[in-house]
Amino acid sequence: MGHGGGGAMSAELVEHVFAPAFGGPLLASLGDSAALTLGGARLAFSTDSFVVRPLFFPGGSIGDLAVNGTVNDLAMSGARPAYLSCAFILEEGVEMSVVARVAQALGEAARRAGVEVVTGDTKVVEAGHGDGIYLNTAGIGLIPAGVDIRAQRAAPGDVVIVSGDIGVHGVAVMSVREGLEFGVRIESDCAALGGLVEAMLAVTPDLHVLRDPTRGGLGAALNEIAVAAGVGVLVQERAVPVPDEVANACAVLGLDPMYVANEGKLVAFVPREHAEAVLAAMRAHPLGARATVIGECVADHPGMVVARTGLGGTRVVDLPIGEQLPRIC
Amino acid sequence: MGHGGGGAMSAELVEHVFAPAFGGPLLASLGDSAALTLGGARLAFSTDSFVVRPLFFPGGSIGDLAVNGTVNDLAMSGARPAYLSCAFILEEGVEMSVVARVAQALGEAARRAGVEVVTGDTKVVEAGHGDGIYLNTAGIGLIPAGVDIRAQRAAPGDVVIVSGDIGVHGVAVMSVREGLEFGVRIESDCAALGGLVEAMLAVTPDLHVLRDPTRGGLGAALNEIAVAAGVGVLVQERAVPVPDEVANACAVLGLDPMYVANEGKLVAFVPREHAEAVLAAMRAHPLGARATVIGECVADHPGMVVARTGLGGTRVVDLPIGEQLPRIC
Ligand SMILES: Nc1ncnc2c1ncn2[C@@H]1O[C@H](COP(=O)(O)OP(=O)(O)OP(=O)(O)O)[C@@H](O)[C@H]1O
Ligand SMILES: Nc1ncnc2c1ncn2[C@@H]1O[C@H](COP(=O)(O)OP(=O)(O)OP(=O)(O)O)[C@@H](O)[C@H]1O
Ligand SMILES: [Mg+2]
Ligand SMILES: [Mg+2]
Ligand SMILES: [Mg+2]
Ligand SMILES: [Mg+2]
Ligand SMILES: [Mg+2]
Ligand SMILES: [Mg+2]
Repeated sequence: MGHGGGGAMSAELVEHVFAPAFGGPLLASLGDSAALTLGGARLAFSTDSFVVRPLFFPGGSIGDLAVNGTVNDLAMSGARPAYLSCAFILEEGVEMSVVARVAQALGEAARRAGVEVVTGDTKVVEAGHGDGIYLNTAGIGLIPAGVDIRAQRAAPGDVVIVSGDIGVHGVAVMSVREGLEFGVRIESDCAALGGLVEAMLAVTPDLHVLRDPTRGGLGAALNEIAVAAGVGVLVQERAVPVPDEVANACAVLGLDPMYVANEGKLVAFVPREHAEAVLAAMRAHPLGARATVIGECVADHPGMVVARTGLGGTRVVDLPIGEQLPRIC
Repeated sequence: MGHGGGGAMSAELVEHVFAPAFGGPLLASLGDSAALTLGGARLAFSTDSFVVRPLFFPGGSIGDLAVNGTVNDLAMSGARPAYLSCAFILEEGVEMSVVARVAQALGEAARRAGVEVVTGDTKVVEAGHGDGIYLNTAGIGLIPAGVDIRAQRAAPGDVVIVSGDIGVHGVAVMSVREGLEFGVRIESDCAALGGLVEAMLAVTPDLHVLRDPTRGGLGAALNEIAVAAGVGVLVQERAVPVPDEVANACAVLGLDPMYVANEGKLVAFVPREHAEAVLAAMRAHPLGARATVIGECVADHPGMVVARTGLGGTRVVDLPIGEQLPRIC
């Protein structure tokens, strides 16, 4: 098995190995989080491990990612994130001051996101069997009544909105890794999206799909939605907000910003009649100030994402092949 | 920082680094799982990472541990375990057939335990930065009305019951590691204790304390309870069930069975008036067939565990210093 962040490989393993072995019905929907009912409460439940290298990067750290990554997967079900678990795998020899800084960052990120870390675990492995710190968080949140947000609900006519500039997190991590310099310092967009989602739900509980385009970027997220719902997605290429610094860095690195990870952005499929009001609510929130419409959901070419280029032509936006950026989250 | 399973180090890190950094009130009680209320439901929430070496050992695998470890931490709050998350950190180069066998074992263990794996994550790290497979699970369960089980509730007069033979898991793993042979093959006791706890709760919801004596063994578990509740614990040394094979292996390895990990046992503090009935219910369950009273909770020597030896003397059962057995879970 080759290495990488595991995004593309993860999808194959989940389909061919994990889902068949685990066999439960809830896993099958493969959302950002699982939606379940327990003791009468409708809950979202999600987990992610974090293996980012380096542990600290412009705009954040593995501690921020561990909170925001899980909080965002919960928020993508429309849930209000509430409680987190947090498990450290420490490599023998890691500096205690580094562990303390990561813990501090994690605690502060949790307070900013309005969630409480309530349980955890700590394991230690020998030097050469880890990489300083690996972190896992799992989270639970409450899904409000009337909310049913999942990829399968994308419908022709839906307006596709992205909450802001794309490609920033992946480029920020790459900019400090292997000493690459692009002149301008690019900071990760890592942020908790629970508040932004609440603002959107205040307009209407009837949002169809939300997804945080992390590993695999916007391109992978749109493809997964198109396949899950059996719909087409038509993107206006010029409407996709890519900052100049990101575009320049991607040119140097040979990357396509459509496939670069984001850690503080979401893409939404919104029924046309609510789109304008939802967009306005997003723009009124600090994390959605640059929200914009990038395309629409169509009945044509089901399962495929097609971009209309600046010159009026069209091209297929494929799933990314393999991993563009290993260990960026 | 030195290496080890992280049990003793975990406790220090949690007290001095993690709890202060995270700062929430729920973490402070440091139970096997956190008890919380969400959407009107009383939930238990817990997590553990698993770094056991080798991945397969007599009587189980990392997949079994990952299910039973988290299920048991939930059951120790009296919760009925319901849903699990499951996150793999794969080392580049790990055989796909090994990943598949672990996934299969995990799925089967989940079905046996009556829980459903509903969400997960997969990351891949470079060769030399992992050890084949690290696993994390988090779990949620429902706490029945009227149940309030936690270390702080241990009270003088409580009868201390252990559900069966101790020291088996740690010795089973050691027996295959570094090629040690003890003549007799010792199989891990790894098992899910949800059903046993249900049988105990059917006698009375008023169990005071349950704990699964994993890393640090029975000795650590009893000490943690004594400190948390500010009570003393008096153990009849001869009553503690240690199989001959475990005693012999421990003698060879220079270990004290009181500090060797168990993965399918629990220790219970039960109000005296219910002790006999609870013990009978345990013995009627396959996982409690060898349940036995090992001592009592006392008002004397608060925070301390004292053993009455076979010769009529007493000795203090300290907290284990450092780690006896690294990476046994
Ligand atoms: N090891 C696994 N076992 C079970 N389900 C898994 C596993 N790995 C991933 N999944 C499931 O596959 C889907 C995709 O997982 P993935 O981790 O790619 O999503 P994500 O967390 O939203 O993205 P990222 O990890 O980049 O933040 C999710 O529904 C997740 O629950
Ligand atoms: N990194 C951490 N962050 C927050 N809390 C932690 C962390 N590590 C451990 N804890 C908390 O400390 C307590 C003891 O944890 P520990 O992992 O030793 O218990 P356990 O899971 O019952 O044992 P084991 O891991 O051997 O199965 C628990 O309440 C746990 O939630
Ligand atoms: Mg996601
Ligand atoms: Mg995620
Ligand atoms: Mg633990
Ligand atoms: Mg425990
Ligand atoms: Mg545990
Ligand atoms: Mg994930």
